[in-house]
Amino acid sequence: MASPVVGLLHPGEMGHTVGACAVAAGARVLWASEGRSEASRARAESAGLEDAGDVSALAGQCEWLVSVCPPHAAVETARLAIEHGFRGRYIDANAVSPATARAIESEVESAGASFVDGGIIGLPARVAGTTRLYLSGAAADEAAALFAAPLEAIAIKGGAGAASALKMSFAAWTKGTSALLMAIRALATSEGVDDALLAEWARSIPDLPGRSTGVMHATVPKAWRFVAEMHEISATFKDAGLPAGFHASAAEVYERLAKYKDAPQPPLPAEVLAALLRG
Amino acid sequence: MASPVVGLLHPGEMGHTVGACAVAAGARVLWASEGRSEASRARAESAGLEDAGDVSALAGQCEWLVSVCPPHAAVETARLAIEHGFRGRYIDANAVSPATARAIESEVESAGASFVDGGIIGLPARVAGTTRLYLSGAAADEAAALFAAPLEAIAIKGGAGAASALKMSFAAWTKGTSALLMAIRALATSEGVDDALLAEWARSIPDLPGRSTGVMHATVPKAWRFVAEMHEISATFKDAGLPAGFHASAAEVYERLAKYKDAPQPPLPAEVLAALLRG
Repeated sequence: MASPVVGLLHPGEMGHTVGACAVAAGARVLWASEGRSEASRARAESAGLEDAGDVSALAGQCEWLVSVCPPHAAVETARLAIEHGFRGRYIDANAVSPATARAIESEVESAGASFVDGGIIGLPARVAGTTRLYLSGAAADEAAALFAAPLEAIAIKGGAGAASALKMSFAAWTKGTSALLMAIRALATSEGVDDALLAEWARSIPDLPGRSTGVMHATVPKAWRFVAEMHEISATFKDAGLPAGFHASAAEVYERLAKYKDAPQPPLPAEVLAALLRG
Repeated sequence: MASPVVGLLHPGEMGHTVGACAVAAGARVLWASEGRSEASRARAESAGLEDAGDVSALAGQCEWLVSVCPPHAAVETARLAIEHGFRGRYIDANAVSPATARAIESEVESAGASFVDGGIIGLPARVAGTTRLYLSGAAADEAAALFAAPLEAIAIKGGAGAASALKMSFAAWTKGTSALLMAIRALATSEGVDDALLAEWARSIPDLPGRSTGVMHATVPKAWRFVAEMHEISATFKDAGLPAGFHASAAEVYERLAKYKDAPQPPLPAEVLAALLRG
């Protein structure tokens, strides 16, 4: 059996490790360097990806195309692939709502390609046990077979939308509570009771003082790309008839921190809290 | 020095243990049985409280009055005490926003009484280490001296509003995340990925499967009185210029569960999730 040919849009922090895990499983993995950064090229090379040049060349050569991008770019990325002639099997592995996943499915299938829904949970896949790629839809099992360790690719039941729903549900907790925790620290600071809150937490919920500071270090540099993800989660709740405000507010928290995207130094906690309070 | 005379409105689940801790500190503690339930009477007796009869008699005899009631009743309870002639020192120990606390302060002080802000964190005070009564305002230290173990009464700096802000910040996490967790389980159920979510959590956040079920048992019977508290927290965030949607949505979650207030049996998890999804 010939090696499958897999295209990757794009080799970012997470994406290039997903590509490397397809290489590890025996696939030829291509990417398209046109218009991408030097950092992307370095990541692609480290992952053993071949440069197809541009998206047209990529779309023409690949049986599979895997999209790993910030959620606000997911629909556009699928359209671009279709416009450049891709008619194979398209895996959207992004943090989008089930409705967005189904909308992408619809566009992809209208054009004569087929669709697999995906959702990645965990860190960039560098060591075993840290990263799952959930997949759902008709070709989910075949898609799962494209990847090897350290990534675990897991097909789940349910059609297009199930893998995205799982990702949304998971991130609703992790990124939702991170935003809430930072907002609470900002509230306590603005009311002059931050020290008293930390002292009370130290007694009754002892992991929270450290966690509430740690979360600032961990999420602030990535806040810019969490904004759209929170909106996708909020829409997922709304579509299910559940309250959408938790993640609408989480989006607002990350929006206020989005300016730290390219900060040379991560801001100190006091600056993060002030940025949240300035609105 | 004569024993201080402390009035308690009202000896509920939490309140009667607060009263018992004032008795333990040497105070005479009075309550007003008029219009209250048999359960209140039983609690008051178990706590060693004396029945003053009605609120007028209570207001006339007490130097201090402590209000421990559901947050939606906090303003009304203060007004009632004032209307019945109370002119001593009024401790509002309820889960209200700093703005609500200051509004109560204003009404109390306009009438010639004085005000101490309070906020209770923890369980009813039956054993050491479980319950703190935070106090702020001019007479916070004197107020703290009214109570003995197992309640810890802690004066914090800041005027009226600080103790309430601390309570709001604390409950913003505990009750906010409980509501979020139930909403996430409802979402996953509605999308058919609840089993997959529990399996993923079991690997990556191993306390969440049990916690997400435990929280249904723990909070559903009390949901009816969390609704107003979530609105108070939401208002606290809004007043500080922070996103108010986390707790507006938490209020909606508890609102959907408020009907279980007097349920003879707590509902099973599947019924809780269905109630959340029915809206």
